[in-house]
Amino acid sequence: MNVSVLAVGTELLLGQIIDSNSAWMGEELAAHGIDSLVQVKVGDNVGRIKGQLRRLLDDADAVIICGGLGPTHDDLTRQAIAEFMGVPLVFDEHIGQVIRNMFESRGRRMPENNLRQATVPTGAIVIPQTRGTAPGLICPVGDSEKKVVYAVPGVPHEMRDMMQRVIIPDLVHRSESTDTIVSRVLRTWGESESGLNERLDGVIAQLESVGTPTLAFLASGWEGLKVRLTAKASSATECAAQLDVWDARVRGELGDLVFGVGEDTMESVVLELCRKRGLTLGLAESVTGGLVGARLTSVPGASEVLRGAIVSYTTEVKQKLLDVSQGPVVSETAAREMAAGARERLGADIGLSLTGVAGPTEQDGQLVGTLFVGLCGPGFDAVHEVRLPGQREQMRQLAVITALGMLRQLLIDT
Amino acid sequence: MNVSVLAVGTELLLGQIIDSNSAWMGEELAAHGIDSLVQVKVGDNVGRIKGQLRRLLDDADAVIICGGLGPTHDDLTRQAIAEFMGVPLVFDEHIGQVIRNMFESRGRRMPENNLRQATVPTGAIVIPQTRGTAPGLICPVGDSEKKVVYAVPGVPHEMRDMMQRVIIPDLVHRSESTDTIVSRVLRTWGESESGLNERLDGVIAQLESVGTPTLAFLASGWEGLKVRLTAKASSATECAAQLDVWDARVRGELGDLVFGVGEDTMESVVLELCRKRGLTLGLAESVTGGLVGARLTSVPGASEVLRGAIVSYTTEVKQKLLDVSQGPVVSETAAREMAAGARERLGADIGLSLTGVAGPTEQDGQLVGTLFVGLCGPGFDAVHEVRLPGQREQMRQLAVITALGMLRQLLIDT
Repeated sequence: MNVSVLAVGTELLLGQIIDSNSAWMGEELAAHGIDSLVQVKVGDNVGRIKGQLRRLLDDADAVIICGGLGPTHDDLTRQAIAEFMGVPLVFDEHIGQVIRNMFESRGRRMPENNLRQATVPTGAIVIPQTRGTAPGLICPVGDSEKKVVYAVPGVPHEMRDMMQRVIIPDLVHRSESTDTIVSRVLRTWGESESGLNERLDGVIAQLESVGTPTLAFLASGWEGLKVRLTAKASSATECAAQLDVWDARVRGELGDLVFGVGEDTMESVVLELCRKRGLTLGLAESVTGGLVGARLTSVPGASEVLRGAIVSYTTEVKQKLLDVSQGPVVSETAAREMAAGARERLGADIGLSLTGVAGPTEQDGQLVGTLFVGLCGPGFDAVHEVRLPGQREQMRQLAVITALGMLRQLLIDT
Repeated sequence: MNVSVLAVGTELLLGQIIDSNSAWMGEELAAHGIDSLVQVKVGDNVGRIKGQLRRLLDDADAVIICGGLGPTHDDLTRQAIAEFMGVPLVFDEHIGQVIRNMFESRGRRMPENNLRQATVPTGAIVIPQTRGTAPGLICPVGDSEKKVVYAVPGVPHEMRDMMQRVIIPDLVHRSESTDTIVSRVLRTWGESESGLNERLDGVIAQLESVGTPTLAFLASGWEGLKVRLTAKASSATECAAQLDVWDARVRGELGDLVFGVGEDTMESVVLELCRKRGLTLGLAESVTGGLVGARLTSVPGASEVLRGAIVSYTTEVKQKLLDVSQGPVVSETAAREMAAGARERLGADIGLSLTGVAGPTEQDGQLVGTLFVGLCGPGFDAVHEVRLPGQREQMRQLAVITALGMLRQLLIDT
């Protein structure tokens, strides 16, 4: 089963919006064992949409069109599909009523153009809308109607809902494949991509002779370095069994470098480690300016662990609020004092501090990229110095995961 | 002049990486008056790359291929172009030497496969590399060699360098257009897209009768709502003159809603307003957990204005470090006390505080989305309450620009 994706929207072509919908679809299709052929962006133009449909269906068994289903004059996907199928667009009274009810229930007047969304190419099957006003479409096409064009709205949560609820199951059914594909992502921190590769040389060689699962690396900035295992088997249970075996082998080689699985983040993992041990955390941030606190508090429930942060961007604030002594503020001593000060002032069990140089210029005779991390808590009192790559924002982001990774290691070791 | 973009990489098709290069190219092409036809993602496969080249060149005058120029076995762009042109790949000794020198100057051993990057399809013109190891290519194709295929690396800064240095000028030259296109983006905050539209109804009607510049809206989350004017004229000077006229008309209607131009951000604008008046700033953050500090310190030189922040994520920290009195902490009183506490404790001229509910659940009887912003400084002492949309992270991001926008307005008014 080969699928291509056609993203419709002049704003995509002009780069005013980045097309992340297609990437999400590609990932979802792959996870269900469906091959992606190409993904195309095209502007709001009936002729070009039709032309692309024709070309894509030369090679693909199915095309998913995303976008152009809204109520305004530049939403042209319905018309393009109808012309491509050579059928008229007809008004669907049921859809019309659903849209009218939606406005009514919100107590809002319905602009008439919303009813454009209730027109459907003859012969198309409607994918009922559950979140927005525009329904999706399933349109049989080709000589024996064996091929298919799906249409979904460009609004991400509406698109995702229709993909998962209707389109993926329909594609899996059509593909008549008995294979299931399941991926598992191990998240690592503390080793470069080539370093991980080297450690996993033996595992990769074994995997290549076995054929499944496959293994791939994906560097993801302050999300860490991902190791993705993808298994193909006749059932989800069998995939899971494969993944369990190789997950264990990978961890056998990487040990503590693996900090989480799937949607885990370094923030959520550190918060959970603290929570389990009943420890609270206080931060002293200089170079990161609040970024560590911002990341930790993006996790719901962070308040169980994080008491707060003192962002001491100036030397006087470091001295007054964190009891840092006179001397250079990008230094081991300052990092140690900041961590102790945060612990004390915020009444936390653990103090974590970051001081360093994000650039654009040197500071206190320290090069851009220098980071000191101070950590104090029950059974530990340490300062680590590292040199991080990247320009200002990248350095600051890497500082966040670096510092939290150090805290995680201490919590595991002590 | 019609251009299509072909992004090469299986990782793009599988959604492991989002293709932001094409979006950047689309924006850059549009800014130079060059039309984009389609943008396609294709996997690492010689046959499919060639097939796409053939189809894209049916309609387009030029195709830019991005990616697949690296040193490994799955970098297939060079080979696909050579086969498409029907010419051999030949080794270019000069490029080879540049690559060897690059490794030598870094004191690193050069893996042999790097020299793959020195092979060039016969008849292609080399775009010298200035940042990475892979050069770009300009390949004349088609019956009279009037069409052209460009190839650039997928590494964003290498791609951007070659686009700006060579490809855009070459395309502009080939297009023989005497028109120049210049855009100006006005950044606004404080009014919805439809609200801006309504205020600018008259201006838009006049612009439509004049034809140039054109006006478009672009909602950009915590970057604000952008109004983009795009002028087309025979020279950059003439474009600038057009833009000056309509920029003034737009500002005439929108007034203080316009907070900046081009790369200005609300952070940089607020810091600059403070700096000009010699005022320092201290923050008290609760719901945003450090996000306001993180954003302000992403601007180089922020330390001239920002003294620091107290992230008081728990009630005890609010009381102990910010002198907040007993009572609900998501309230007007708490916001007022937090702002005063930040000003006092951080020794700043201005205190800015944020307390609210990001969700997922209500707090202190306040709905998710509730935000109180406290502002105190020379000549002002205010608290504003607003209700923000969105889930946890979106609400927090909107809280940042909302609070900084309120401070900006106070600094202008007082």
